[in-house]
Amino acid sequence: MELFAEVGYEQTTVAAIAERAGLTSRTFFRYFADKREVLFGGSEVLQESMVAALAGAAAGATALEAIAAALAAASEFFDEKRRGFARQRAAVIAANGELYERELIKLARLSAALAEALGARGFDEPDASLAAEAGIAVFRVAFAQWVRKTERRSYSIIVDASLARLKTLATAV
Amino acid sequence: MELFAEVGYEQTTVAAIAERAGLTSRTFFRYFADKREVLFGGSEVLQESMVAALAGAAAGATALEAIAAALAAASEFFDEKRRGFARQRAAVIAANGELYERELIKLARLSAALAEALGARGFDEPDASLAAEAGIAVFRVAFAQWVRKTERRSYSIIVDASLARLKTLATAV
Repeated sequence: MELFAEVGYEQTTVAAIAERAGLTSRTFFRYFADKREVLFGGSEVLQESMVAALAGAAAGATALEAIAAALAAASEFFDEKRRGFARQRAAVIAANGELYERELIKLARLSAALAEALGARGFDEPDASLAAEAGIAVFRVAFAQWVRKTERRSYSIIVDASLARLKTLATAV
Repeated sequence: MELFAEVGYEQTTVAAIAERAGLTSRTFFRYFADKREVLFGGSEVLQESMVAALAGAAAGATALEAIAAALAAASEFFDEKRRGFARQRAAVIAANGELYERELIKLARLSAALAEALGARGFDEPDASLAAEAGIAVFRVAFAQWVRKTERRSYSIIVDASLARLKTLATAV
């Protein structure tokens, strides 16, 4: 990740990444299918964890409460130890159109997965899709704040604040 | 557009599109930079129109009211005459990964433009980004309903209903 940030994603070879990490290229490929996986390898586990939290939210939870449970589950992935990595990752992705596209696709998939999980809880369309998209809106905005250089609040605090703001915005007259 | 739907986007040549439209390839290129432009050529005009409507919303409008004005402005582009085209376009895009990525990027740009316009109206972050993303959420869900085969309601009606649902979801306890 440091290498991507230093010399650019396109210019970074797997051999250089492996060397920096103290691995052989062969060992690297045991962990990652390709160098894109270094950036996106965690996204499926994240999605599974968020969907599971949504499915496990308290019976009778509103759509947005179930979404809030999914967003809270992501905090396990976005702890202080990973903030430095996440900051560099965000900068690398912002600088590379292809990676940015991939990030948008992952978010669209996450949104669809959350909508489906809301459907399984009995929420009809368009409510399920609307709540899922609203959740992704909160997630994107909160995550962007969390990786900002001057930001010190935890991901959990920021996500809760963003969700509260969305509610306030939606009800403002 | 019919051609994209019939034989697939990849397989459709500019010559075939021009022939179907009764144009020479040369005339085609006077209107469109390439065949992708047939699908995405309108997105900049749409964005400008939505941003202008947001900027021109009544003084004292809340963030979501200003977003509602932007969403309403899009109705001029999504009238009954264009529903058939929009349906085919949606099917073509859903079937082609590259086009789908482009669609996601256009929506991300639209979201950023709306957030900037809210900033210009005096809304701080993260409110501006949150309201813009929530607006895109409503837009995506409403548009997907509008192009559904069995849907008969107008885009305006659907967008208003979606916005109302979002408010209800956000306030449900």
